[in-house]
Order: sequence, then C-alpha cells, then structure tokens
Amino acid sequence: MHDLTRLSLNQATIRQWDVRQAVEGCARAGVPAIGLWRERVAELGVERSARLVRDAGLAVSSLCRGGFFPAATTAERQRRIDDNRRAIDEAARLGTDVLVLVCGPAPDRDLQAARAMVHEAIGALLPYAQEHGVRLAIEPLHPMFAADRSVIVTLKQALDLAEQFPADVVGVAIDVYHVWWDPEVLPQIARAAGRILGFHVNDWIVPLPDVLNGRGLMGDGVIEIRKLRQAVDAAGYHGPIEVEIFNERLWAMDGDALLELICDRFRSWV
Amino acid sequence: MHDLTRLSLNQATIRQWDVRQAVEGCARAGVPAIGLWRERVAELGVERSARLVRDAGLAVSSLCRGGFFPAATTAERQRRIDDNRRAIDEAARLGTDVLVLVCGPAPDRDLQAARAMVHEAIGALLPYAQEHGVRLAIEPLHPMFAADRSVIVTLKQALDLAEQFPADVVGVAIDVYHVWWDPEVLPQIARAAGRILGFHVNDWIVPLPDVLNGRGLMGDGVIEIRKLRQAVDAAGYHGPIEVEIFNERLWAMDGDALLELICDRFRSWV
Repeated sequence: MHDLTRLSLNQATIRQWDVRQAVEGCARAGVPAIGLWRERVAELGVERSARLVRDAGLAVSSLCRGGFFPAATTAERQRRIDDNRRAIDEAARLGTDVLVLVCGPAPDRDLQAARAMVHEAIGALLPYAQEHGVRLAIEPLHPMFAADRSVIVTLKQALDLAEQFPADVVGVAIDVYHVWWDPEVLPQIARAAGRILGFHVNDWIVPLPDVLNGRGLMGDGVIEIRKLRQAVDAAGYHGPIEVEIFNERLWAMDGDALLELICDRFRSWV
Repeated sequence: MHDLTRLSLNQATIRQWDVRQAVEGCARAGVPAIGLWRERVAELGVERSARLVRDAGLAVSSLCRGGFFPAATTAERQRRIDDNRRAIDEAARLGTDVLVLVCGPAPDRDLQAARAMVHEAIGALLPYAQEHGVRLAIEPLHPMFAADRSVIVTLKQALDLAEQFPADVVGVAIDVYHVWWDPEVLPQIARAAGRILGFHVNDWIVPLPDVLNGRGLMGDGVIEIRKLRQAVDAAGYHGPIEVEIFNERLWAMDGDALLELICDRFRSWV
C-alpha cells in the first residue's frame, strides 16, 4: 500500500483514545476510515458519535461487534439475538454497512451444538439486517479462542456457514492474525470472492507475549501480510483494510505517535 | 476406559521424575506403558533406560521426539535429518516402533517452503525408518504453535502429508489438545484409519493458564475427550493412550500422587 486510501483505524488499536479523540486523530493523520466498537460508541452515544465521524469526513469501515450467540437456554439465546438487532441498528445509524460477528464459545463442551446455535441465530437476524442495509461479517477466530470466544475457527468453516445465506447479507471478515497459519488460507480466500466484507491486519510476534493482548504491529512478526493482502485483492476485495491490534505496550504509547507508526508500517508491510 | 490396560504415561507429564523414577512409579501404579523423551533418556543412557523398562515389564508407547526439519540452509537441514536418524536408532533400541515427529517452524515467514522441507525430510528418513522397524508419527500441533514449533497444524494436513508415504512407515499421532477445536476433526479421524500411531489425552483449561505449559488434567477443561477417543477406536486404533500434560502446577506435585490422579481421571474421562 503506497498510500493510505485503504487504511482504516480499528479504534481498539488505540484504546487510549475515546471516539472523539480517535476521530480527531484520524483527521490529523489523514486516515480516511475508522472501525468503531459498540462500548466506546456507547460512552458518547450513537448519535453524537455518528455526527462526529460524519463531520470529520471519515468513513466507518465496520462496527465491532455482534455475535456471542451460543447459550445454554432458549431465553438467553433470544436475548443475544435481540442484542444483535440493536447492534445492527447502531451500525446503520453510524453509517457503516458491516457488523463484525465474533460468534461466541459453546456454553458447555458441545462444539457441534454451539455451531448449530450460531447458524440459527444468523438465520434469525437475516431479515432485520437486510431491512437495515447492514451486512453480517462472520469473523473466524484463531483456534486458540475456540473455548472462550468463537466456535468458528477457520475461514473454510466461516464460508461454509456464510454460503447458507444470501451473499448480499452474510459474508466474512478476514483477520491475518486468525488465519495466517492455515494450510488452506489461500484457496479459501479465493473461494471467498464476493463474500469478503473486511480485511484486518496486524502481526504474530514470536514468542507470543499474550494470547489476547499480544498482537504485533505489521512487520514485527512472522505473518506474510502482503501475500495475504494480495490474495484478498485478487479475490476482488478493494475495501478498507483495518489495522486491529490488541497490545498492552502499544496502549501505553501516545496516540498520535502510535498512529504515525501504524501509517508507516501500513505503507511498508501491507 | 474402565481399566488401565491402554494407559501410557508420557514421561513429560511427571517431569519431576527421571526415567528410573518414572519406570518404578508406573510399576507401582500398575501403568503398563510409558512414552519416553530423548533428553531424559540421554541422562541415563539409552541402554540403561532400555534395560530398566524391559526389566519392569513396561511397554514403550513412543519416543518423543523427532522432527524440527525446516532450516535456512541445506547443511542445517541435513544436520536435522542426521539427528532424526539417531532418534530412530534410539527408538528401536528402547523397544518402541513409534517416533513422534514435531515437524518444526519455518526459519523465516515462508510457511509453504517450510512445509516442503518437512516433506523432503520425511522422504529422506523413510528407508532408514523402514530398516529399523520404526514408524514416523507426524503430530499436528495446535495452530498457536505454527510460528515456533510446527508448520503442520491440522490433522487433515498431517494426513495429506502422511499419505504420500507408505502406511506401514508414516502415520499420525493425534493429541486432543492440538485437534479438539477443528470442525473437521471427526471425519479426519475416520480418514486416518490405518495411519493412527498414537493417541494423546489431556484437556484445554479455560482461561488458558499458559500456551505451552498450561494443559489440564482430563476433566478440568472443555475437550470432549471420550467422544474423540471413541472416534479413534472406531477408526481401528486400539493401541496405547498416552497421557501427555505440560503443566507447571502438576510438576510441583508428588509424583505418585499425581500418577494416582492421572489413573482416576483416565478412568472417568477417557
């Protein structure tokens, strides 16, 4: 990426900033898009957040996150579906047509049952998402999150699921951290053509500082980021590329300095 | 498992014991088999270790570990192959026909090239393994080890590789910790019929205490161990089941007390 036209800052990357600060920081740095998180948006309110990004001329590449569908009881599963309807509302009001789904873990040991619950919940959300012009991006998470964050763990599995629904409503979000290890990642990216709703970059540091909050800046790890980006391009995705990094060390930095570093690394490694 | 006839203690599980202590401990507890590690065998010497296990009437279910094939230079790759020939020798002298392969990480970012190096190395070892009556068990490791331990990360990938070689020499070792998350694990276990050279049990604790040394005792985590064991049985594997757990907390326990706990959990959960 020789310029920043496709760069989007996922706001979790600079969590030392609230929505207002992140919007202002992106404007200062010439970053044209932002990925928002529901809980940070809630601090300021959806309408005020929406106005801020609109007034700054920023695009919203996605809202994070819906999902967490499997639960032990029908009532609890219904509550989660209702919450996802609110997330769809919020996405539409924030001006993005992509809601990222982290599908959730099993409530017990039964992965198969939990995966069926994910399928059922997406089916239940489909008409509501369609009416609101919001697409659901199933994000396969790295298998090390299978027990506590997502029973959807490979791109193949995410596509097997997405393909059971219309392509204009359900697709996938591809994050290099979650898929880089997969022997089938390149053919599955090719297969994802027409279903790619987001592409996230970061890096896998060796040794891994922390399962959840030890992701690296692009270039600090072992992921062949450019190769994956080119594969995603070749599959016809030309939308925003979110930098999404959870890293305690980066969260301790000055926000503007970190965003400058992100822009540099984006140019060199994505 | 209502009795212990298929139980094998992988000696890394009780690393507070050396080979002699582990052999004596197994004999005391009525555990009929042991999985040995090269570095622990080296402390005592191969011949003395072999005599100890033979005199105690223990079977050796496997030797850990060969592998670590990919390297930046031809000379270094050759050195690794030579070391694996020594591991084959040791396995034969210890009375086991299974050498477990942890295939190793890439020397750089190129996973595809590293995977080709693994394929080439196994091909180079094939005649030597065959002559010595030792089978090579490719162990797919959890994808979170892709960067530092193994570029072979799924059972499907391990089988795709194994099937390029004769079934009487190259197969797979299936460890529940490494494969439980995989949406394809059951069909791949069925496919592995005739190639299963080992089955390892333990558990995945939530939250994970440590990537490498935070595995749990059977029953302490979320893995459907019995379901996987039954799938392995149905695929025609009726050999030893190794308990292999790396866990700092367990390593601080009295060895006999830990082995008793392992036997209990084996009966209840495997």
